[in-house]
Amino acid sequence: MNEKLQRMLELYREVSHLAMAAGLLDWDQQCYMPPGGAALRAEQLATLAKLAHERLTSPEMGQLLDELEPWAASLDPDSFEASVVRVARREYDRATRIPAELEAEFSRAASAGFAAWAEARQAGDFRIFAPKLERLVQLTIERAEALGYEERRYDALLNLFEPGSRTSQVQALFQQLKEGLVPLVHAVAERVDRVKNDFLFGGYDERKQWDFGVRLLKAIGFDFQRGRQDRSEHPFTVGFGSGDVRLTTRFQPYLGSALFGTLHEGGHGLYEQGIPPEFAGTPVGSAASFGVHESQSRLWENLVGRSRAFWRHFYPELQALFPERLGEVDLDTFYAAINRVEPSLIRVEADELTYNLHIFLRFDLELKLIEGDLKVADLPEAWRAGMRELLGRAPENDRDGVMQDVHWSQGAFGYFPSYTLGNVLSVQLFEKAKEERPDIPQEIERGEFAGLLGWMRERIHRHGGKFTGTELIVRATGREADAAPYLRYLREKYEEIYGL
Amino acid sequence: MNEKLQRMLELYREVSHLAMAAGLLDWDQQCYMPPGGAALRAEQLATLAKLAHERLTSPEMGQLLDELEPWAASLDPDSFEASVVRVARREYDRATRIPAELEAEFSRAASAGFAAWAEARQAGDFRIFAPKLERLVQLTIERAEALGYEERRYDALLNLFEPGSRTSQVQALFQQLKEGLVPLVHAVAERVDRVKNDFLFGGYDERKQWDFGVRLLKAIGFDFQRGRQDRSEHPFTVGFGSGDVRLTTRFQPYLGSALFGTLHEGGHGLYEQGIPPEFAGTPVGSAASFGVHESQSRLWENLVGRSRAFWRHFYPELQALFPERLGEVDLDTFYAAINRVEPSLIRVEADELTYNLHIFLRFDLELKLIEGDLKVADLPEAWRAGMRELLGRAPENDRDGVMQDVHWSQGAFGYFPSYTLGNVLSVQLFEKAKEERPDIPQEIERGEFAGLLGWMRERIHRHGGKFTGTELIVRATGREADAAPYLRYLREKYEEIYGL
Repeated sequence: MNEKLQRMLELYREVSHLAMAAGLLDWDQQCYMPPGGAALRAEQLATLAKLAHERLTSPEMGQLLDELEPWAASLDPDSFEASVVRVARREYDRATRIPAELEAEFSRAASAGFAAWAEARQAGDFRIFAPKLERLVQLTIERAEALGYEERRYDALLNLFEPGSRTSQVQALFQQLKEGLVPLVHAVAERVDRVKNDFLFGGYDERKQWDFGVRLLKAIGFDFQRGRQDRSEHPFTVGFGSGDVRLTTRFQPYLGSALFGTLHEGGHGLYEQGIPPEFAGTPVGSAASFGVHESQSRLWENLVGRSRAFWRHFYPELQALFPERLGEVDLDTFYAAINRVEPSLIRVEADELTYNLHIFLRFDLELKLIEGDLKVADLPEAWRAGMRELLGRAPENDRDGVMQDVHWSQGAFGYFPSYTLGNVLSVQLFEKAKEERPDIPQEIERGEFAGLLGWMRERIHRHGGKFTGTELIVRATGREADAAPYLRYLREKYEEIYGL
Repeated sequence: MNEKLQRMLELYREVSHLAMAAGLLDWDQQCYMPPGGAALRAEQLATLAKLAHERLTSPEMGQLLDELEPWAASLDPDSFEASVVRVARREYDRATRIPAELEAEFSRAASAGFAAWAEARQAGDFRIFAPKLERLVQLTIERAEALGYEERRYDALLNLFEPGSRTSQVQALFQQLKEGLVPLVHAVAERVDRVKNDFLFGGYDERKQWDFGVRLLKAIGFDFQRGRQDRSEHPFTVGFGSGDVRLTTRFQPYLGSALFGTLHEGGHGLYEQGIPPEFAGTPVGSAASFGVHESQSRLWENLVGRSRAFWRHFYPELQALFPERLGEVDLDTFYAAINRVEPSLIRVEADELTYNLHIFLRFDLELKLIEGDLKVADLPEAWRAGMRELLGRAPENDRDGVMQDVHWSQGAFGYFPSYTLGNVLSVQLFEKAKEERPDIPQEIERGEFAGLLGWMRERIHRHGGKFTGTELIVRATGREADAAPYLRYLREKYEEIYGL
């Protein structure tokens, strides 16, 4: 291998090891750290981030990339060598374009924003949060300008999560989705009482839920020799190479919370476990994009986990585990219950159908904030108006409205679209997988997932971060993100459940 | 504060944060990491160690120390400022004196040594381990020479664990101890059957053991808001500042294993929790020495935890927890059982009385190895001869002999004396505490430990790493490590139990 490439990878590996160490510190913070460790942990994380940034942006790295690029241009762009140079360049540019001072100020503003957000939520008073959010919007605009873009300022932010994506593409996709979804949601909303799910609340022993969740994770292919599951307040997944992938879950009165949360994180985990071990610590050791990552979690959570086929196999087991709650509930009733639609105010509690409407609103508002078409002071009212338009109801307070999500408080603008993109891609990939492996539906009914997982491994996981999300989806399905299969899937599913 | 000092502390803080991150990665490795994470974890740890070493030995650090020392010399040597400069200098010198190449080779030899040791133990064949151990001895000699010493080569190694200590002091102390202990051990050995402890083996529910251990930890003052306990194969304690101190424990058929292991680690944990929070991340943020650390663990494990006074308070609780095992066993019988002496082959299973004999042997042998008076090939036979002389019995195989401890396989020569030093210091400190706070014995009988802990906080913990172990013990007790109180304690205790 090219000596300069070796050296670049060596340097990059240190950046990556520091990031992994930070990832473990964060995992620990959310799962095990005693309260007294918080202050010092924040300092440790700041040091690791600083050292990683220093090494990623070192003059040596820049020099190596300059020297490697002509050589890499002569290689097959799909090769490991060409890919690591390409991705390292993207990360190097991203890290060097933002002046250190701006980045430090943004980081401080994000900490202050998060603290103010938590306080404002507690007090139910948006005005506590507003000045910090204003500052964050301003600094985010400066970051976007520093990062650069071709069409629109928001592109620069979008690219942090979806490299190569354009705002105009997201807008077109969301418009198409909105046109299909809104009438469907309204039709279902009128028949909301056709489906009951009260028996899914309360009376489910946590230990049994945990064991059943582990049972499902093993069934779908999550390898506990190369991963584990813990509890945390907010479920998440983090991978340290494919050999150590960690999921978290939580338990709430609603049975579906842990059940589908576990399958969701399990889907993220399968992706991480499917990235080739030899990619670990290199620029291509991570997933292609947030949207593609979300496609994997949504696939296992919704397309598999909320399907009748899946429960045809697993429902008897679940019934046997909770006979006093589910003994008298038949499969169809259970299936309808776990897919019950109810337009609600809170994104993270939203059902499969209304979920995207929450994203449309956030995308619309953050786009306006970043492009200067909306003032922070006007945000709460814009939120209420948007909710009324999309879901027919508005929150009574800002805690259940504009302050419900943590993202903006930490300056994570540009992230939300990935959620909906993930939903769209999940169906596009699932349909392609079934087209090429027609046995998949029957396998799912038998509780066998090797066919589906194998296809995802082959088409998505094994490429790690070599390609952008769009490149990967085109390679896998022959076309870019397409709303049609997703809308078709939702229509068929919910028309049947609600007898439309 | 002096600007140069600020900068030095800033640089040092990064070293410290890297070390803490490495500490968490190691903790995780021993407590939670799935098997698949091992390979990459080793790489992550190597990167963190490399970056920490680079920063500690940076020219800037050397320059700052050169510039700060004249200023620090004008300050009260007990002041924070003078202390951090003094300790940082010691660590800087230690890190810079060993050539990077030698350190890297030593690190590789230690990894290879550990692997060969594990393999040799498995196979029961010392010859597999011998060549790696020889190499480690050679490299350790080179390290000692690089580190430098005034009297004897072994001093340089001793100083890694007990800054400022001399081999000659250890020899004198050990000689005094040996003269007192060997006759006592022999006298007890003849009456070994007077004390039974068979009822302490088996039938103790782990969950109840865990809960009782936590109960004891809380009683002695361990703060679970600033710490936690987990399980691991080998119990250990690690602190990330005083706000996040982690203990581990394990369960075996012998009840005393978790019980006294928990109190032992709890003692280490109390020390860590007692170091001032503002010392965290500075050169004085760690304990004074390994021996002083061990004095705290032995204090709570043995002087408190294996005392009749302690169990006068807690034994009824333990009986109530395990009525089927201990219901018919009275306090005196229990007290004798947990103090049963039995000359055994294995150090980590040794009782309080014979424990030090195991250390004498190891110290004697490693001193000879380092000073060139013993060949690795002759080590197994020297071990057997030493065991016969000290404990009247020799192991049948090297697994239970020279290969039982991990230390040498990782190149940790100079460490063993700290164990016995800790025993000696524990009694010296305990007696001084009781002298100055005469209520301590009655408090222990009532299950109250604030008096004893308060004294240790004041005299030991709050100084962090400002002083060497010897300095600290002289400040606290008025004299250097002294075998007399320890021997007196052991004689009184065991003469009573064994009716000598």
